[in-house]
Amino acid sequence: MTQAATATQPSAGNIPVTRGLDGQVYPDAIATDPYAMGWMQGEPVPLNKRIAFADGSNYRFPQFRWAFAHARQLAPTLAVRRADQVAAAFGRALDESLWRVAFQPMVGDVRMDWSDLLKATYTDAIIVMHRGRVVLEHYGGVMTPERQHVSMSVSKSVLGLVGAMLLHQGVLDEGAHVEHYLPEMAGSGFAGATVRQVLDMTTGIHYSENYADPQASIWSHTYAGGILPRPVNYDGPDSFMAYMPTVKPLGTHGHEFTYRTVNSDVLGWIIRRVTGRALADVVSQMLWQPMGAQDEGYYTIDSCAIEFAGGGFSATLRDMVRIGELIRQRGSFGGQQIIPESVIADLHRGADPTQFVANGPPTLRGWSYRNMWWASHHVSQAIMARGIHGQNIYIDPRAEMVIARFASHPVAANMVNDVYTLPAYAAMAEHLRQT
Amino acid sequence: MTQAATATQPSAGNIPVTRGLDGQVYPDAIATDPYAMGWMQGEPVPLNKRIAFADGSNYRFPQFRWAFAHARQLAPTLAVRRADQVAAAFGRALDESLWRVAFQPMVGDVRMDWSDLLKATYTDAIIVMHRGRVVLEHYGGVMTPERQHVSMSVSKSVLGLVGAMLLHQGVLDEGAHVEHYLPEMAGSGFAGATVRQVLDMTTGIHYSENYADPQASIWSHTYAGGILPRPVNYDGPDSFMAYMPTVKPLGTHGHEFTYRTVNSDVLGWIIRRVTGRALADVVSQMLWQPMGAQDEGYYTIDSCAIEFAGGGFSATLRDMVRIGELIRQRGSFGGQQIIPESVIADLHRGADPTQFVANGPPTLRGWSYRNMWWASHHVSQAIMARGIHGQNIYIDPRAEMVIARFASHPVAANMVNDVYTLPAYAAMAEHLRQT
Repeated sequence: MTQAATATQPSAGNIPVTRGLDGQVYPDAIATDPYAMGWMQGEPVPLNKRIAFADGSNYRFPQFRWAFAHARQLAPTLAVRRADQVAAAFGRALDESLWRVAFQPMVGDVRMDWSDLLKATYTDAIIVMHRGRVVLEHYGGVMTPERQHVSMSVSKSVLGLVGAMLLHQGVLDEGAHVEHYLPEMAGSGFAGATVRQVLDMTTGIHYSENYADPQASIWSHTYAGGILPRPVNYDGPDSFMAYMPTVKPLGTHGHEFTYRTVNSDVLGWIIRRVTGRALADVVSQMLWQPMGAQDEGYYTIDSCAIEFAGGGFSATLRDMVRIGELIRQRGSFGGQQIIPESVIADLHRGADPTQFVANGPPTLRGWSYRNMWWASHHVSQAIMARGIHGQNIYIDPRAEMVIARFASHPVAANMVNDVYTLPAYAAMAEHLRQT
Repeated sequence: MTQAATATQPSAGNIPVTRGLDGQVYPDAIATDPYAMGWMQGEPVPLNKRIAFADGSNYRFPQFRWAFAHARQLAPTLAVRRADQVAAAFGRALDESLWRVAFQPMVGDVRMDWSDLLKATYTDAIIVMHRGRVVLEHYGGVMTPERQHVSMSVSKSVLGLVGAMLLHQGVLDEGAHVEHYLPEMAGSGFAGATVRQVLDMTTGIHYSENYADPQASIWSHTYAGGILPRPVNYDGPDSFMAYMPTVKPLGTHGHEFTYRTVNSDVLGWIIRRVTGRALADVVSQMLWQPMGAQDEGYYTIDSCAIEFAGGGFSATLRDMVRIGELIRQRGSFGGQQIIPESVIADLHRGADPTQFVANGPPTLRGWSYRNMWWASHHVSQAIMARGIHGQNIYIDPRAEMVIARFASHPVAANMVNDVYTLPAYAAMAEHLRQT
């Protein structure tokens, strides 16, 4: 780690100033290092260094640079049991020269390299694997290889994998309507939507997800689940399952993709209903156990102990990269087919990109969203899981490359990360292909 | 499990009515089975079936029959990492006829057997080992072999083991005063008390622990740590480390034993100070890792992420019985001396029983308290860890027997359990000695 830390000192001048979508300027990654800032240090911790759920400081920058790596110390959680038989660690072929791999961000007139990337994107931890071996690994701030970090919407992709596997097993029918599994949803905007439409987020529902808008539905959703402190005098739904049936229809199911987190929680509820088990147990049984996860994962939960399927999953980076490597290996690990190959092929094939054009993120032109994974439709066959503030699993089969990354970028919107990470990942892939 | 459940149906009439120290009658174990009562079941869970920290229902009977097995789903927690190399499960020589082993409780005119014991003491889970093999194992209600359960003051004994090991290593000096390690405590009632006096709870401090008294210090202590919801307009200390220095002196250090939980939290703070690590990490490194713990343990924590050393530890029963078996094996496991033999000998030797007479529990006449373990001074050399509402690790070297038990008895006071468990354990020991 010391070696990596030394190699990743910033090249002065190559780190653009961080601005929010509204132009607000944020202090940089070095100034907000959570360890240096002294969060939760002291005996007792001084009041101005404490981080808590109740006052919202756990989701406030720069405090969340500590909080993202300590979710279970701040709120109730449910364990995703680790493998009884932990897999051997991946082989290592560390190459510190890779920190010098250069790329051109999508915006700005600056040439950057990978050591700049860490700082520009407030990266807490990153692993790059090539041909099944670890070639770069770095932990900054309060992160360690054993520490779980929030994955935000990477949670959706973990869930989507499980959903696609259950489709393959015939436990779920992609043509069945939501209300077939969840009669509670018959009066909601999800009525008439198929499991496939939920998985690909082409449901026609009234649900906004602009993180910069305090009135957006995503906040009502999280207040219902108690994932953020509720406003004073809150009298809305008091659980995810009370919230979901209140979502109204908007437009037509199956016509176009729109990114709406509630689809993931509906999928989580469906999976719970058909398996009769907690989502945490299903993820453990179908992924964590067979892939030999090193550590437990865990979910933040609501007042009914129901997992926040759309964004509440924490795990270690080494287990996250293992998911990516499992996909790169077409679902096979240790001679076992953990994920059916047809499920992997479906992820890479993606959904219909024409349904993605209207509402897809501007940084992902030409992509689509399939089984809660982002598919590039690029010749590399790259796919990606991504979560706000900079969480990623990125798989480039052509370059035989897998990247997992945790970050605590001050700006939630993925596109603020994408403008650096996507060119950086592409440059690394090109570099590795040639070695 | 099914077999055990069948074998442990109550013998009608042999289960005494449960009464509190004030005479209050409680519904029995069958009527309050947490699964049958439907706690936290339903999608969403009906309001009258929810259990939460905020409203205190997590520490209310019969709700706590569910909550004791779900502490991490109700509050922030800190993990005690399980062993990277999990030990092989103990051999099994199950003998269901042992449920018929009979005993005479300390009170009442009734003859009971071990299947009655489970019901009379609201036992959630129990394991009996003989000569290193499991001879009885039972999980009731919501418990399973993989589920952690609160251990209450068994937490102290886990900590005391670690403290005694650190003394043996010379990291701690049993003659040093509390303020030598913790200058913050120089103005408190602990000033002038030695580490040995803290370990054996012979400190002279003003701290009451009558669980039936709402004004008892134990409640101020837990409110400070936020382990129970604070009263409205609470303005007391807001962390364990803010509370401990406020404890006043009473009497003389080193003269007599008095059971006061705050000693354990002071010991926890000292251990943190000398190791420079979180208690959870120390317990993992010194016990959980070397003994090959099957599952992680975890601590409930305060607003500074400091462990409730005196009562906040949860673990699986199989890991708890492993501690007991490790002690029975004189600290040796798999050819390694995990706990120095002299530390084990010291536990069995106990403290000075004359210092125990005045304030020792009436059910433990002739015993003493050493390194936060209860020593019987009996020819069997039995020692015990015990926590309110019925938590136990019991080691009888002469009978080559170890028992671990989790329970959710409606009455906190240990003596309400002791009147059944101590005769039952003695009867089982006698029975096993003869086989």
